[in-house]
Amino acid sequence: MERKLIESRPVVLKLGGSAITEKKGEEPNPRSDVISRAAAEIIKARVKNLVIVHGAGSFGHPMAAEFMLKDGFREEGQKMGLAITHNLVSVLNGLVMDALLVDDFPAVSVAPSSCVVSSDGRIKRFEDQPLKMLLRMGFTPVLYGDVVMDERIGFTVVSGDQLAAVLAMKLDARKIIMAGDTDGVYDGPPKNPGAKPYARLTLADLKKIEDKLGASAGSDVTGGMLGKITELKPALEAGIPVMVVNATKANSVYRALVGEKVEGTLIEKA
Amino acid sequence: MERKLIESRPVVLKLGGSAITEKKGEEPNPRSDVISRAAAEIIKARVKNLVIVHGAGSFGHPMAAEFMLKDGFREEGQKMGLAITHNLVSVLNGLVMDALLVDDFPAVSVAPSSCVVSSDGRIKRFEDQPLKMLLRMGFTPVLYGDVVMDERIGFTVVSGDQLAAVLAMKLDARKIIMAGDTDGVYDGPPKNPGAKPYARLTLADLKKIEDKLGASAGSDVTGGMLGKITELKPALEAGIPVMVVNATKANSVYRALVGEKVEGTLIEKA
Repeated sequence: MERKLIESRPVVLKLGGSAITEKKGEEPNPRSDVISRAAAEIIKARVKNLVIVHGAGSFGHPMAAEFMLKDGFREEGQKMGLAITHNLVSVLNGLVMDALLVDDFPAVSVAPSSCVVSSDGRIKRFEDQPLKMLLRMGFTPVLYGDVVMDERIGFTVVSGDQLAAVLAMKLDARKIIMAGDTDGVYDGPPKNPGAKPYARLTLADLKKIEDKLGASAGSDVTGGMLGKITELKPALEAGIPVMVVNATKANSVYRALVGEKVEGTLIEKA
Repeated sequence: MERKLIESRPVVLKLGGSAITEKKGEEPNPRSDVISRAAAEIIKARVKNLVIVHGAGSFGHPMAAEFMLKDGFREEGQKMGLAITHNLVSVLNGLVMDALLVDDFPAVSVAPSSCVVSSDGRIKRFEDQPLKMLLRMGFTPVLYGDVVMDERIGFTVVSGDQLAAVLAMKLDARKIIMAGDTDGVYDGPPKNPGAKPYARLTLADLKKIEDKLGASAGSDVTGGMLGKITELKPALEAGIPVMVVNATKANSVYRALVGEKVEGTLIEKA
Protein backbone atom coordinates (compact mmCIF):
# COMPACT_ATOMS: atom_id res chain seq x y z
CA MET A 1 0.00 0.00 0.00
CA GLU A 2 2.60 2.47 1.13
CA ARG A 3 4.77 1.90 -1.91
CA LYS A 4 1.88 2.73 -4.16
CA LEU A 5 1.23 6.00 -2.41
CA ILE A 6 4.85 7.03 -2.33
CA GLU A 7 5.68 6.78 -5.98
CA SER A 8 9.45 6.50 -5.82
CA ARG A 9 11.15 5.02 -2.77
CA PRO A 10 12.53 7.80 -0.58
CA VAL A 11 16.13 8.59 0.21
CA VAL A 12 17.02 9.30 3.84
CA LEU A 13 19.91 11.72 4.23
CA LYS A 14 21.49 12.01 7.65
CA LEU A 15 23.64 15.10 8.17
CA GLY A 16 25.91 14.33 11.09
CA GLY A 17 26.06 16.66 14.07
CA SER A 18 29.85 16.39 13.87
CA ALA A 19 29.73 17.77 10.32
CA ILE A 20 27.30 20.65 10.80
CA THR A 21 28.49 21.83 14.23
CA GLU A 22 31.83 22.49 15.95
CA LYS A 23 32.65 20.48 19.02
CA LYS A 24 35.19 23.00 20.37
CA GLY A 25 34.40 24.61 23.71
CA GLU A 26 31.20 24.53 25.70
CA GLU A 27 29.06 26.73 23.48
CA PRO A 28 26.89 25.43 20.65
CA ASN A 29 28.64 26.39 17.43
CA PRO A 30 27.28 25.82 13.95
CA ARG A 31 29.61 25.08 11.03
CA SER A 32 27.83 27.54 8.79
CA ASP A 33 30.05 26.77 5.81
CA VAL A 34 29.18 23.07 5.92
CA ILE A 35 25.47 23.78 6.49
CA SER A 36 25.34 26.20 3.54
CA ARG A 37 27.24 23.96 1.16
CA ALA A 38 25.36 20.80 2.10
CA ALA A 39 22.07 22.68 1.69
CA ALA A 40 23.16 23.98 -1.72
CA GLU A 41 24.09 20.44 -2.79
CA ILE A 42 20.76 19.07 -1.55
CA ILE A 43 18.90 21.77 -3.48
CA LYS A 44 20.98 21.12 -6.62
CA ALA A 45 20.37 17.36 -6.44
CA ARG A 46 16.56 17.82 -6.43
CA VAL A 47 15.94 14.27 -5.24
CA LYS A 48 12.29 13.31 -5.32
CA ASN A 49 11.11 11.89 -2.00
CA LEU A 50 13.91 13.04 0.24
CA VAL A 51 13.84 12.99 4.02
CA ILE A 52 16.60 14.83 5.86
CA VAL A 53 17.62 14.06 9.44
CA HIS A 54 20.33 16.06 11.11
CA GLY A 55 22.27 15.46 14.27
CA ALA A 56 22.45 17.78 17.26
CA GLY A 57 26.23 18.01 17.67
CA SER A 58 27.32 20.76 20.02
CA PHE A 59 23.72 22.05 20.20
CA GLY A 60 22.61 18.86 21.93
CA HIS A 61 25.30 16.63 23.35
CA PRO A 62 26.93 18.87 25.99
CA MET A 63 23.60 19.74 27.69
CA ALA A 64 22.22 16.23 27.24
CA ALA A 65 25.35 14.83 28.91
CA GLU A 66 25.38 17.42 31.70
CA PHE A 67 21.78 16.64 32.63
CA MET A 68 22.02 12.91 31.87
CA LEU A 69 18.94 13.21 29.69
CA LYS A 70 19.52 9.92 27.86
CA ASP A 71 19.13 7.95 31.09
CA GLY A 72 15.68 9.36 31.74
CA PHE A 73 14.12 11.22 34.62
CA ARG A 74 16.00 11.14 37.93
CA GLU A 75 15.42 14.52 39.50
CA GLU A 76 13.58 17.79 38.93
CA GLY A 77 16.71 19.69 37.92
CA GLN A 78 16.91 17.76 34.67
CA LYS A 79 13.72 19.32 33.38
CA MET A 80 15.24 22.69 32.56
CA GLY A 81 18.08 20.78 30.91
CA LEU A 82 15.58 19.01 28.70
CA ALA A 83 13.69 22.21 27.88
CA ILE A 84 16.88 24.08 26.98
CA THR A 85 18.28 21.16 24.99
CA HIS A 86 15.09 21.02 22.92
CA ASN A 87 15.29 24.76 22.38
CA LEU A 88 18.95 24.52 21.26
CA VAL A 89 18.37 21.68 18.78
CA SER A 90 15.42 23.68 17.43
CA VAL A 91 17.77 26.62 16.90
CA LEU A 92 20.19 24.39 14.97
CA ASN A 93 17.26 23.09 12.95
CA GLY A 94 16.33 26.69 12.21
CA LEU A 95 19.81 27.29 10.77
CA VAL A 96 19.49 24.22 8.54
CA MET A 97 16.01 25.30 7.45
CA ASP A 98 17.20 28.84 6.64
CA ALA A 99 19.94 27.36 4.42
CA LEU A 100 17.48 25.07 2.63
CA LEU A 101 14.76 27.66 2.11
CA VAL A 102 16.90 30.17 0.25
CA ASP A 103 16.41 28.64 -3.15
CA ASP A 104 12.87 27.46 -3.95
CA PHE A 105 13.31 24.21 -2.03
CA PRO A 106 10.15 23.46 -0.02
CA ALA A 107 11.54 21.94 3.18
CA VAL A 108 9.41 21.67 6.32
CA SER A 109 10.78 20.80 9.76
CA VAL A 110 9.25 17.91 11.68
CA ALA A 111 10.03 17.97 15.41
CA PRO A 112 10.60 14.46 16.81
CA SER A 113 9.63 15.64 20.30
CA SER A 114 6.19 16.51 18.88
CA CYS A 115 5.46 13.15 17.24
CA VAL A 116 7.68 10.45 18.77
CA VAL A 117 7.34 8.51 22.03
CA SER A 118 10.07 6.08 23.06
CA SER A 119 10.30 3.16 25.44
CA ASP A 120 13.61 2.72 27.25
CA GLY A 121 15.30 4.92 24.68
CA ARG A 122 13.97 3.12 21.62
CA ILE A 123 11.38 4.75 19.35
CA LYS A 124 8.07 3.07 20.16
CA ARG A 125 5.38 5.30 18.71
CA PHE A 126 5.96 7.55 15.72
CA GLU A 127 3.05 9.59 14.38
CA ASP A 128 4.21 9.65 10.77
CA GLN A 129 1.05 10.82 9.00
CA PRO A 130 2.07 14.49 8.75
CA LEU A 131 5.54 13.42 7.54
CA LYS A 132 4.18 11.00 4.93
CA MET A 133 1.68 13.59 3.72
CA LEU A 134 4.46 16.19 3.43
CA LEU A 135 6.44 13.73 1.30
CA ARG A 136 3.49 12.92 -0.92
CA MET A 137 2.83 16.63 -1.46
CA GLY A 138 6.44 17.11 -2.60
CA PHE A 139 7.87 18.69 0.54
CA THR A 140 11.16 17.61 2.10
CA PRO A 141 10.65 16.83 5.80
CA VAL A 142 13.62 17.73 8.00
CA LEU A 143 13.96 15.96 11.35
CA TYR A 144 16.71 16.06 13.96
CA GLY A 145 18.15 14.43 17.03
CA ASP A 146 15.88 15.57 19.84
CA VAL A 147 14.65 14.91 23.34
CA VAL A 148 11.46 12.83 23.46
CA MET A 149 9.04 11.59 26.08
CA ASP A 150 9.64 7.98 27.10
CA GLU A 151 6.93 5.72 28.49
CA ARG A 152 9.32 3.82 30.77
CA ILE A 153 11.99 6.30 31.83
CA GLY A 154 10.08 9.59 31.50
CA PHE A 155 12.18 11.15 28.76
CA THR A 156 15.31 10.46 26.81
CA VAL A 157 17.36 11.53 23.80
CA VAL A 158 16.68 10.05 20.38
CA SER A 159 19.65 10.36 18.05
CA GLY A 160 19.45 11.37 14.43
CA ASP A 161 20.90 7.94 13.63
CA GLN A 162 18.05 6.09 15.30
CA LEU A 163 15.56 8.39 13.57
CA ALA A 164 17.21 7.84 10.18
CA ALA A 165 17.07 4.05 10.58
CA VAL A 166 13.46 3.98 11.79
CA LEU A 167 12.34 6.37 9.06
CA ALA A 168 14.14 4.40 6.35
CA MET A 169 12.31 1.25 7.43
CA LYS A 170 8.94 2.97 7.84
CA LEU A 171 9.21 4.55 4.40
CA ASP A 172 10.89 1.59 2.67
CA ALA A 173 13.71 3.90 1.66
CA ARG A 174 15.90 3.04 -1.30
CA LYS A 175 19.03 4.16 0.53
CA ILE A 176 20.35 5.90 3.59
CA ILE A 177 23.15 8.43 3.17
CA MET A 178 25.18 9.02 6.32
CA ALA A 179 26.98 12.30 5.71
CA GLY A 180 29.41 12.82 8.56
CA ASP A 181 32.88 14.27 8.98
CA THR A 182 34.94 11.25 7.88
CA ASP A 183 35.54 9.68 4.49
CA GLY A 184 33.71 6.51 5.44
CA VAL A 185 34.18 3.57 7.79
CA TYR A 186 37.90 3.27 8.49
CA ASP A 187 39.88 0.07 8.95
CA GLY A 188 41.53 1.59 12.01
CA PRO A 189 41.83 4.91 13.84
CA PRO A 190 41.36 7.46 11.01
CA LYS A 191 44.31 9.51 12.28
CA ASN A 192 46.71 6.56 11.88
CA PRO A 193 49.00 7.01 8.86
CA GLY A 194 47.99 3.73 7.21
CA ALA A 195 44.27 3.91 7.96
CA LYS A 196 41.91 4.09 5.02
CA PRO A 197 38.17 3.82 4.57
CA TYR A 198 36.61 0.60 3.29
CA ALA A 199 35.04 1.01 -0.11
CA ARG A 200 32.38 -1.59 0.55
CA LEU A 201 31.23 -3.64 3.52
CA THR A 202 28.60 -6.29 4.04
CA LEU A 203 26.78 -7.06 7.27
CA ALA A 204 29.06 -10.10 7.61
CA ASP A 205 32.13 -7.86 7.20
CA LEU A 206 30.78 -5.54 9.88
CA LYS A 207 30.35 -8.47 12.25
CA LYS A 208 33.97 -9.50 11.68
CA ILE A 209 35.23 -5.95 12.35
CA GLU A 210 33.17 -5.74 15.53
CA ASP A 211 34.53 -9.08 16.72
CA LYS A 212 38.08 -7.99 15.98
CA LEU A 213 37.66 -4.71 17.86
CA GLY A 214 35.97 -6.42 20.77
CA ALA A 215 33.43 -5.01 23.15
CA SER A 216 35.90 -2.70 24.89
CA ALA A 217 37.04 -0.84 21.82
CA GLY A 218 34.11 1.54 21.67
CA SER A 219 33.01 3.31 18.57
CA ASP A 220 35.67 6.00 18.45
CA VAL A 221 38.36 3.58 17.21
CA THR A 222 36.74 3.54 13.80
CA GLY A 223 36.12 7.24 13.70
CA GLY A 224 32.86 7.07 15.63
CA MET A 225 31.25 5.20 12.80
CA LEU A 226 30.77 1.71 14.19
CA GLY A 227 28.33 2.88 16.85
CA LYS A 228 26.32 4.72 14.24
CA ILE A 229 26.24 1.70 12.00
CA THR A 230 25.00 -0.51 14.83
CA GLU A 231 21.99 1.80 14.92
CA LEU A 232 21.49 1.24 11.19
CA LYS A 233 21.70 -2.56 11.25
CA PRO A 234 17.95 -3.19 11.22
CA ALA A 235 17.70 -1.08 8.07
CA LEU A 236 20.66 -2.93 6.50
CA GLU A 237 19.03 -6.25 7.38
CA ALA A 238 15.86 -5.01 5.69
CA GLY A 239 17.94 -4.60 2.52
CA ILE A 240 18.39 -0.84 2.61
CA PRO A 241 21.95 0.11 1.60
CA VAL A 242 23.85 2.70 3.63
CA MET A 243 26.36 5.06 2.05
CA VAL A 244 28.81 6.71 4.46
CA VAL A 245 30.25 9.91 2.99
CA ASN A 246 31.98 13.07 4.16
CA ALA A 247 29.68 16.10 4.31
CA THR A 248 32.64 18.37 5.01
CA LYS A 249 34.05 17.66 1.52
CA ALA A 250 32.55 19.51 -1.43
CA ASN A 251 30.16 17.55 -3.64
CA SER A 252 30.08 14.39 -1.51
CA VAL A 253 26.48 14.95 -0.45
CA TYR A 254 25.48 15.90 -3.99
CA ARG A 255 27.13 12.85 -5.54
CA ALA A 256 25.69 10.48 -2.97
CA LEU A 257 22.21 11.94 -3.53
CA VAL A 258 22.23 11.65 -7.31
CA GLY A 259 24.04 8.30 -7.31
CA GLU A 260 27.36 9.44 -8.78
CA LYS A 261 30.65 7.81 -7.78
CA VAL A 262 31.78 9.26 -4.47
CA GLU A 263 34.48 8.67 -1.88
CA GLY A 264 33.00 6.74 1.02
CA THR A 265 31.90 3.35 2.30
CA LEU A 266 28.93 1.51 0.84
CA ILE A 267 27.40 -0.93 3.31
CA GLU A 268 25.00 -3.56 2.04
CA LYS A 269 23.24 -6.60 3.44
CA ALA A 270 25.40 -9.00 1.42
CA MET B 1 -9.17 7.85 32.92
CA GLU B 2 -7.59 11.00 31.56
CA ARG B 3 -8.62 13.03 34.59
CA LYS B 4 -6.90 10.58 36.88
CA LEU B 5 -3.65 10.77 34.95
CA ILE B 6 -3.67 14.55 34.72
CA GLU B 7 -4.03 15.40 38.37
CA SER B 8 -5.39 18.89 38.11
CA ARG B 9 -7.36 19.96 35.07
CA PRO B 10 -5.15 22.00 32.75
CA VAL B 11 -5.44 25.64 31.84
CA VAL B 12 -5.12 26.56 28.16
CA LEU B 13 -3.62 30.01 27.60
CA LYS B 14 -3.89 31.48 24.11
CA LEU B 15 -1.54 34.39 23.43
CA GLY B 16 -3.01 36.23 20.47
CA GLY B 17 -0.89 36.92 17.41
CA SER B 18 -2.21 40.49 17.49
CA ALA B 19 -0.76 40.90 20.99
CA ILE B 20 2.68 39.35 20.49
CA THR B 21 3.36 40.70 16.99
CA GLU B 22 3.03 44.02 15.15
CA LYS B 23 0.78 44.14 12.13
CA LYS B 24 2.43 47.24 10.63
CA GLY B 25 4.12 46.82 7.26
CA GLU B 26 4.88 43.64 5.35
CA GLU B 27 7.66 42.29 7.55
CA PRO B 28 7.10 39.96 10.48
CA ASN B 29 7.61 42.02 13.63
CA PRO B 30 7.54 40.68 17.15
CA ARG B 31 6.28 42.80 20.03
CA SER B 32 9.19 41.86 22.21
CA ASP B 33 7.91 43.91 25.15
CA VAL B 34 4.60 42.03 25.22
CA ILE B 35 6.31 38.64 24.74
CA SER B 36 8.75 39.30 27.59
CA ARG B 37 6.14 40.60 29.99
CA ALA B 38 3.60 37.87 29.22
CA ALA B 39 6.35 35.26 29.66
CA ALA B 40 7.38 36.80 32.98
CA GLU B 41 3.74 36.74 34.16
CA ILE B 42 3.35 33.11 33.07
CA ILE B 43 6.52 32.16 34.95
CA LYS B 44 5.40 34.09 38.05
CA ALA B 45 1.96 32.43 38.04
CA ARG B 46 3.48 28.91 38.11
CA VAL B 47 0.20 27.27 37.06
CA LYS B 48 0.32 23.49 37.29
CA ASN B 49 -0.79 21.86 34.06
CA LEU B 50 -0.57 24.78 31.71
CA VAL B 51 -0.70 24.55 27.91
CA ILE B 52 0.24 27.64 25.93
CA VAL B 53 -0.89 28.27 22.37
CA HIS B 54 0.21 31.38 20.54
CA GLY B 55 -1.00 32.94 17.35
CA ALA B 56 1.11 33.67 14.28
CA GLY B 57 0.24 37.33 13.75
CA SER B 58 2.51 39.07 11.27
CA PHE B 59 4.77 35.97 11.14
CA GLY B 60 1.97 33.95 9.57
CA HIS B 61 -0.96 35.85 8.16
CA PRO B 62 0.65 37.94 5.38
CA MET B 63 2.38 34.93 3.75
CA ALA B 64 -0.59 32.64 4.38
CA ALA B 65 -2.85 35.17 2.67
CA GLU B 66 -0.47 35.84 -0.22
CA PHE B 67 -0.21 32.12 -1.03
CA MET B 68 -3.83 31.33 -0.12
CA LEU B 69 -2.62 28.54 2.15
CA LYS B 70 -5.89 28.25 4.06
CA ASP B 71 -7.76 27.21 0.93
CA GLY B 72 -5.44 24.27 0.33
CA PHE B 73 -3.32 23.19 -2.59
CA ARG B 74 -4.01 24.84 -5.93
CA GLU B 75 -0.65 25.19 -7.61
CA GLU B 76 3.03 24.36 -7.11
CA GLY B 77 3.99 27.94 -6.28
CA GLN B 78 2.17 27.70 -2.97
CA LYS B 79 4.62 25.13 -1.64
CA MET B 80 7.43 27.57 -0.99
CA GLY B 81 4.84 29.82 0.64
CA LEU B 82 3.91 27.01 2.99
CA ALA B 83 7.55 26.13 3.74
CA ILE B 84 8.46 29.75 4.48
CA THR B 85 5.32 30.33 6.55
CA HIS B 86 6.14 27.31 8.70
CA ASN B 87 9.68 28.58 9.11
CA LEU B 88 8.45 32.05 10.13
CA VAL B 89 5.96 30.80 12.72
CA SER B 90 8.76 28.58 14.09
CA VAL B 91 10.91 31.69 14.45
CA LEU B 92 8.14 33.44 16.39
CA ASN B 93 7.78 30.34 18.53
CA GLY B 94 11.52 30.49 19.17
CA LEU B 95 11.15 34.05 20.48
CA VAL B 96 8.36 32.97 22.83
CA MET B 97 10.42 29.96 23.98
CA ASP B 98 13.48 32.13 24.62
CA ALA B 99 11.36 34.42 26.81
CA LEU B 100 9.91 31.48 28.77
CA LEU B 101 13.18 29.63 29.27
CA VAL B 102 15.04 32.47 30.98
CA ASP B 103 13.80 31.68 34.44
CA ASP B 104 13.68 27.99 35.37
CA PHE B 105 10.40 27.41 33.56
CA PRO B 106 10.52 24.09 31.66
CA ALA B 107 8.57 24.89 28.49
CA VAL B 108 8.82 22.67 25.42
CA SER B 109 7.52 23.61 21.99
CA VAL B 110 5.12 21.26 20.22
CA ALA B 111 4.86 21.88 16.48
CA PRO B 112 1.29 21.38 15.20
CA SER B 113 2.60 20.65 11.67
CA SER B 114 4.44 17.64 13.17
CA CYS B 115 1.47 16.07 14.94
CA VAL B 116 -1.79 17.37 13.46
CA VAL B 117 -3.64 16.39 10.29
CA SER B 118 -6.76 18.27 9.28
CA SER B 119 -9.70 17.59 7.00
CA ASP B 120 -11.11 20.57 5.11
CA GLY B 121 -9.39 22.92 7.53
CA ARG B 122 -10.65 21.25 10.71
CA ILE B 123 -8.32 19.29 13.00
CA LYS B 124 -9.03 15.62 12.34
CA ARG B 125 -6.08 13.72 13.78
CA PHE B 126 -3.99 15.01 16.66
CA GLU B 127 -1.18 12.84 18.01
CA ASP B 128 -1.34 14.11 21.56
CA GLN B 129 0.72 11.48 23.39
CA PRO B 130 3.95 13.52 23.47
CA LEU B 131 1.99 16.57 24.62
CA LYS B 132 0.12 14.68 27.36
CA MET B 133 3.34 13.07 28.54
CA LEU B 134 5.04 16.46 28.66
CA LEU B 135 2.19 17.76 30.82
CA ARG B 136 2.32 14.77 33.16
CA MET B 137 6.08 15.21 33.57
CA GLY B 138 5.54 18.84 34.58
CA PHE B 139 6.57 20.56 31.36
CA THR B 140 4.56 23.34 29.74
CA PRO B 141 3.85 22.51 26.10
CA VAL B 142 3.81 25.53 23.79
CA LEU B 143 1.91 25.23 20.49
CA TYR B 144 1.18 27.79 17.81
CA GLY B 145 -0.90 28.60 14.77
CA ASP B 146 0.78 26.65 11.98
CA VAL B 147 0.40 25.15 8.52
CA VAL B 148 -0.70 21.51 8.58
CA MET B 149 -1.27 18.74 6.07
CA ASP B 150 -4.93 18.26 5.17
CA GLU B 151 -6.38 14.97 3.95
CA ARG B 152 -8.94 16.65 1.69
CA ILE B 153 -7.34 19.86 0.45
CA GLY B 154 -3.65 18.98 0.71
CA PHE B 155 -2.66 21.52 3.33
CA THR B 156 -4.15 24.40 5.22
CA VAL B 157 -3.63 26.78 8.12
CA VAL B 158 -4.76 25.84 11.61
CA SER B 159 -5.23 28.86 13.85
CA GLY B 160 -4.10 29.07 17.43
CA ASP B 161 -7.78 29.54 18.31
CA GLN B 162 -8.79 26.21 16.79
CA LEU B 163 -5.85 24.54 18.51
CA ALA B 164 -6.75 26.10 21.86
CA ALA B 165 -10.36 24.90 21.62
CA VAL B 166 -9.43 21.36 20.50
CA LEU B 167 -6.75 21.06 23.18
CA ALA B 168 -9.07 22.34 25.91
CA MET B 169 -11.60 19.66 25.00
CA LYS B 170 -9.01 16.89 24.62
CA LEU B 171 -7.47 17.72 27.99
CA ASP B 172 -10.75 18.55 29.78
CA ALA B 173 -9.29 21.97 30.60
CA ARG B 174 -10.66 23.90 33.55
CA LYS B 175 -10.52 27.16 31.61
CA ILE B 176 -9.31 28.83 28.43
CA ILE B 177 -7.67 32.23 28.69
CA MET B 178 -7.75 34.22 25.47
CA ALA B 179 -5.10 36.89 25.89
CA GLY B 180 -5.36 39.26 22.95
CA ASP B 181 -4.97 42.98 22.37
CA THR B 182 -8.41 44.15 23.53
CA ASP B 183 -9.99 44.43 26.96
CA GLY B 184 -12.55 41.74 26.17
CA VAL B 185 -15.57 41.27 23.92
CA TYR B 186 -16.92 44.71 23.11
CA ASP B 187 -20.55 45.67 22.67
CA GLY B 188 -19.65 47.59 19.52
CA PRO B 189 -16.60 48.75 17.59
CA PRO B 190 -13.95 49.11 20.33
CA LYS B 191 -12.83 52.46 18.91
CA ASN B 192 -16.32 53.96 19.32
CA PRO B 193 -16.48 56.39 22.25
CA GLY B 194 -19.31 54.57 24.02
CA ALA B 195 -18.10 51.02 23.39
CA LYS B 196 -17.18 48.93 26.39
CA PRO B 197 -16.37 45.28 26.99
CA TYR B 198 -18.96 42.93 28.43
CA ALA B 199 -18.02 41.68 31.89
CA ARG B 200 -19.81 38.37 31.39
CA LEU B 201 -21.55 36.60 28.53
CA THR B 202 -23.35 33.30 28.18
CA LEU B 203 -23.66 31.21 25.04
CA ALA B 204 -27.23 32.52 24.76
CA ASP B 205 -25.94 36.12 24.98
CA LEU B 206 -23.40 35.37 22.25
CA LYS B 207 -26.17 34.06 20.02
CA LYS B 208 -28.14 37.27 20.52
CA ILE B 209 -25.11 39.42 19.67
CA GLU B 210 -24.42 37.40 16.54
CA ASP B 211 -28.05 37.72 15.42
CA LYS B 212 -27.97 41.47 16.00
CA LEU B 213 -24.79 41.90 14.01
CA GLY B 214 -26.03 39.68 11.21
CA ALA B 215 -24.03 37.57 8.82
CA SER B 216 -22.55 40.52 6.93
CA ALA B 217 -21.01 42.24 9.91
CA GLY B 218 -17.91 40.11 10.11
CA SER B 219 -15.84 39.65 13.16
CA ASP B 220 -13.99 42.96 13.08
CA VAL B 221 -17.02 44.89 14.31
CA THR B 222 -16.50 43.49 17.79
CA GLY B 223 -12.76 43.94 17.75
CA GLY B 224 -12.05 40.67 15.98
CA MET B 225 -13.33 38.72 18.94
CA LEU B 226 -16.57 37.24 17.68
CA GLY B 227 -14.82 35.12 15.06
CA LYS B 228 -12.43 33.82 17.66
CA ILE B 229 -15.25 32.95 20.01
CA THR B 230 -17.08 31.03 17.30
CA GLU B 231 -14.02 28.80 17.22
CA LEU B 232 -14.31 28.31 20.97
CA LYS B 233 -18.02 27.45 21.05
CA PRO B 234 -17.55 23.67 21.20
CA ALA B 235 -15.38 24.15 24.29
CA LEU B 236 -17.93 26.52 25.85
CA GLU B 237 -20.69 24.01 25.13
CA ALA B 238 -18.56 21.38 26.86
CA GLY B 239 -18.66 23.58 29.96
CA ILE B 240 -15.19 25.07 29.72
CA PRO B 241 -15.27 28.80 30.59
CA VAL B 242 -13.38 31.27 28.42
CA MET B 243 -11.78 34.40 29.84
CA VAL B 244 -10.95 37.13 27.30
CA VAL B 245 -8.24 39.47 28.60
CA ASN B 246 -5.74 41.97 27.26
CA ALA B 247 -2.17 40.60 27.06
CA THR B 248 -0.85 44.05 26.21
CA LYS B 249 -1.85 45.34 29.68
CA ALA B 250 0.44 44.53 32.59
CA ASN B 251 -0.71 41.77 34.95
CA SER B 252 -3.79 40.73 32.94
CA VAL B 253 -2.25 37.39 31.94
CA TYR B 254 -0.97 36.83 35.48
CA ARG B 255 -4.31 37.62 37.11
CA ALA B 256 -6.25 35.47 34.66
CA LEU B 257 -3.87 32.56 35.26
CA VAL B 258 -4.03 32.64 39.06
CA GLY B 259 -7.76 33.45 39.13
CA GLU B 260 -7.55 37.01 40.46
CA LYS B 261 -10.08 39.66 39.42
CA VAL B 262 -9.10 41.03 36.02
CA GLU B 263 -10.50 43.37 33.39
CA GLY B 264 -12.00 41.29 30.60
CA THR B 265 -14.98 39.23 29.50
CA LEU B 266 -15.88 35.93 31.10
CA ILE B 267 -17.84 33.68 28.77
CA GLU B 268 -19.65 30.68 30.18
CA LYS B 269 -22.10 28.08 28.96
CA ALA B 270 -24.96 29.55 31.01
